[in-house]
Amino acid sequence: MASEPALQEAALTELSALLGDRVTTSPAVRDHHAAGEAYYAPHPPDAVAFPLSTEEVSRIVRICAAHGVPIVPFGAGTSVEGNVLALRGGVCIDMTRMNKVLRVSQDDLDVTVQAGVTRKQLNNDLRDTGLFFPIDPGADATLGGMAATRASGTNAVRYGTLRENALGLTVVLADGRIITTGGRARKSAAGYDLTRLFVGSEGTLGVITEVILKLYGIPEAISAAVSSFPTLDAAVKAVILIIQSGIPMARMELLDEVQMDACNRYSKLDYPVAPTLFFEFHGTQQGVAEQIDRVGEIAAEFGGSGFRWAHKPEERSALWQARHDAYYACLAFKPGTKAWATDVCVPISNLAECLLETKRDIDGSELLAPIVGHVGDGNFHVCFMIHPDDPSEMAQARAINQRMIGRALAMGGTCTGEHGVGCGKIDSLVAEHGEGVEVMRQLKRTLDPDNLMNPGKVVVP
Amino acid sequence: MASEPALQEAALTELSALLGDRVTTSPAVRDHHAAGEAYYAPHPPDAVAFPLSTEEVSRIVRICAAHGVPIVPFGAGTSVEGNVLALRGGVCIDMTRMNKVLRVSQDDLDVTVQAGVTRKQLNNDLRDTGLFFPIDPGADATLGGMAATRASGTNAVRYGTLRENALGLTVVLADGRIITTGGRARKSAAGYDLTRLFVGSEGTLGVITEVILKLYGIPEAISAAVSSFPTLDAAVKAVILIIQSGIPMARMELLDEVQMDACNRYSKLDYPVAPTLFFEFHGTQQGVAEQIDRVGEIAAEFGGSGFRWAHKPEERSALWQARHDAYYACLAFKPGTKAWATDVCVPISNLAECLLETKRDIDGSELLAPIVGHVGDGNFHVCFMIHPDDPSEMAQARAINQRMIGRALAMGGTCTGEHGVGCGKIDSLVAEHGEGVEVMRQLKRTLDPDNLMNPGKVVVP
Repeated sequence: MASEPALQEAALTELSALLGDRVTTSPAVRDHHAAGEAYYAPHPPDAVAFPLSTEEVSRIVRICAAHGVPIVPFGAGTSVEGNVLALRGGVCIDMTRMNKVLRVSQDDLDVTVQAGVTRKQLNNDLRDTGLFFPIDPGADATLGGMAATRASGTNAVRYGTLRENALGLTVVLADGRIITTGGRARKSAAGYDLTRLFVGSEGTLGVITEVILKLYGIPEAISAAVSSFPTLDAAVKAVILIIQSGIPMARMELLDEVQMDACNRYSKLDYPVAPTLFFEFHGTQQGVAEQIDRVGEIAAEFGGSGFRWAHKPEERSALWQARHDAYYACLAFKPGTKAWATDVCVPISNLAECLLETKRDIDGSELLAPIVGHVGDGNFHVCFMIHPDDPSEMAQARAINQRMIGRALAMGGTCTGEHGVGCGKIDSLVAEHGEGVEVMRQLKRTLDPDNLMNPGKVVVP
Repeated sequence: MASEPALQEAALTELSALLGDRVTTSPAVRDHHAAGEAYYAPHPPDAVAFPLSTEEVSRIVRICAAHGVPIVPFGAGTSVEGNVLALRGGVCIDMTRMNKVLRVSQDDLDVTVQAGVTRKQLNNDLRDTGLFFPIDPGADATLGGMAATRASGTNAVRYGTLRENALGLTVVLADGRIITTGGRARKSAAGYDLTRLFVGSEGTLGVITEVILKLYGIPEAISAAVSSFPTLDAAVKAVILIIQSGIPMARMELLDEVQMDACNRYSKLDYPVAPTLFFEFHGTQQGVAEQIDRVGEIAAEFGGSGFRWAHKPEERSALWQARHDAYYACLAFKPGTKAWATDVCVPISNLAECLLETKRDIDGSELLAPIVGHVGDGNFHVCFMIHPDDPSEMAQARAINQRMIGRALAMGGTCTGEHGVGCGKIDSLVAEHGEGVEVMRQLKRTLDPDNLMNPGKVVVP
């Protein structure tokens, strides 16, 4: 397969006739679409197409289908499990020129966007409406990519993930058919839930071209705070008690002392180099005041200290930008390394054990690997800072990752809370779902019989 | 097909060997499993099986598969769109003896139940834990049936539907394979979302035998209230403004004057016979007080009067029992009739128009048809009280239903918010999802190639 070009001249000619200079085989552009943000070796596509409409995506897919050319949908290129590698070459469909907000309804708190709109662009567009879209993976990802990866982020503990916030999709199937799923009703019992089937399918079942999303009113009151803890154990136990108390946290993020050190340096901050929780509270003035009181008591019970408050929008922005830049802070922390960001998610009562055992594994290795977590969800990340060509480092990272995944699964958790399967966790998915993966393979074979949609990701059909 | 018996002697012999007297062809038992609660003509199965375990369900399905015998999973038999009719005979799998709560975690706020556990049984089991499960279709349905129908109810405006509250499932597939989907993690990006594929599939893709559900802490404060409005329009407009104001209502139910009359008589109440909203507020003491103030102001703005409060648990129970008995109140209101309960769901800004135009259609007909609604979701029900053998009544009901569905779809809504497709809305599903239904058919053919799983429901493969 590798010796034959995946993109024949005939297919390229047809694509050029359709798209003009919006399809290119330029090595620079192909290289730019060869990888996400992780350590994986790049795999450039043979060509990159820049469609402007769902109809154009459909035509591109039909041309590729006719010629047996693989397709890789591409948003901001910020995925971390090799989700966008063109493992078998073919055509990368770059969705970023489909970047229109098509419709906003202030009355219904929903919006329809093209897949290439990014989360920051959307919130910028919404700035005069009193509404916002809460899902925020660290990077400024596209909403199509976020839907494809079932993205999550710091607000998921309160507002859910893309799974809960996508009301409907427009999808181009492997044979070029265009379908719309879901709709604008807040709930529906009308047939199989195709929206949820495509959300999280990572481009392996179709290309998401439009997304209908829920929006939320900007809360009357928002406050954020930062608190340091004597140990990781204490910080995690505070989190568990806060969740079990039913306090409606908007955000609750853990950064270990290694990550805090990296963030301080990268974002020019001066927080204590200690396990730290970032909190955010949304509600009415009274409601937020109540939440703050209760969280303050619980944090104090576990030795949380130095509560620093950010009441003003610009202070909060700086705080959360530092959190969102954690990944880039890691990269800057140990120049010359690449980042292998992995994540698991476990029931909240198992979070301390899962996280602390993983931390012990890291401390027992030669690796630098900061830990950050959307801990209110039971979700945390380990970011191995590695030289991918160093076999010893890679072996250690692999071993720690495998042990962490095994631990999470034994606790009833999942091998990935939000990064997705990509090509990095295909075996872990089998370990997690067993016979269920055979059902996923059946679905894949049904909707993509020639295995052309982002091949080599999620499941091996 | 109808002339041949769907259940051959050989299959019954094998089932009897497996289940002993837990499989029966008794006419009385078959008749008891011949229909849900709606007006549809009964279609009894050829036999009814009462499994005790997932393993037994798997063996039943394997026997049926080997002999080409259709299967209809059956919970409490409370569905209303013909979802459990044994249209082609075969074996009804009654899940009600699989009624164990397998595991409760107070720390993680989740529970694993067998499919035959009912919602009231679950909440009774939880009574000493401080936790509750909020989803409450009117009837005391089984949780397996609720998952299969993507059930909803009065609390969905705050807590979501079964779609948002099922963390994982155990499912027996058409070939007898047993899979588990999802898990106990609150979120996961691990592969295709099989949980959501089976939730709402109405038994047509497999038999749900166990469900992992989210639980919630019982709020510190709960208050309920009832308010009457001068017109349906005023009541609905109050609802729309309350939702748009972002007030976190726990429940917000509309009953029109016809339904209130029926409920007063059935539940021995003395509410004004006028369009009425039932509210419930959950939160901290302060939070509930704030919500009550704001809702009171909005209700007053639209002429809402006679706010009656139910602060005590027993008062609230009586109030909500009356609401949940609305369907039975309808049946008692016009003795000798049957109920055809249909529902749609629309974006909240379209709710007034959709509901009022439907009301005008009803008023212009000869039919009695109360309207009730989970209006915070944009969802409402029309309950046609009909004599199914009266062609004129049936024609009028069909016409009003069709116009209502067409209206909802034109508004971006759905042909059913919570009742499901069953055999009653197969054409409406096509009207709603078009080419998407062909994808549903592909999925059905893949997972049930012989069309034995609840055939004749949701999609015609």
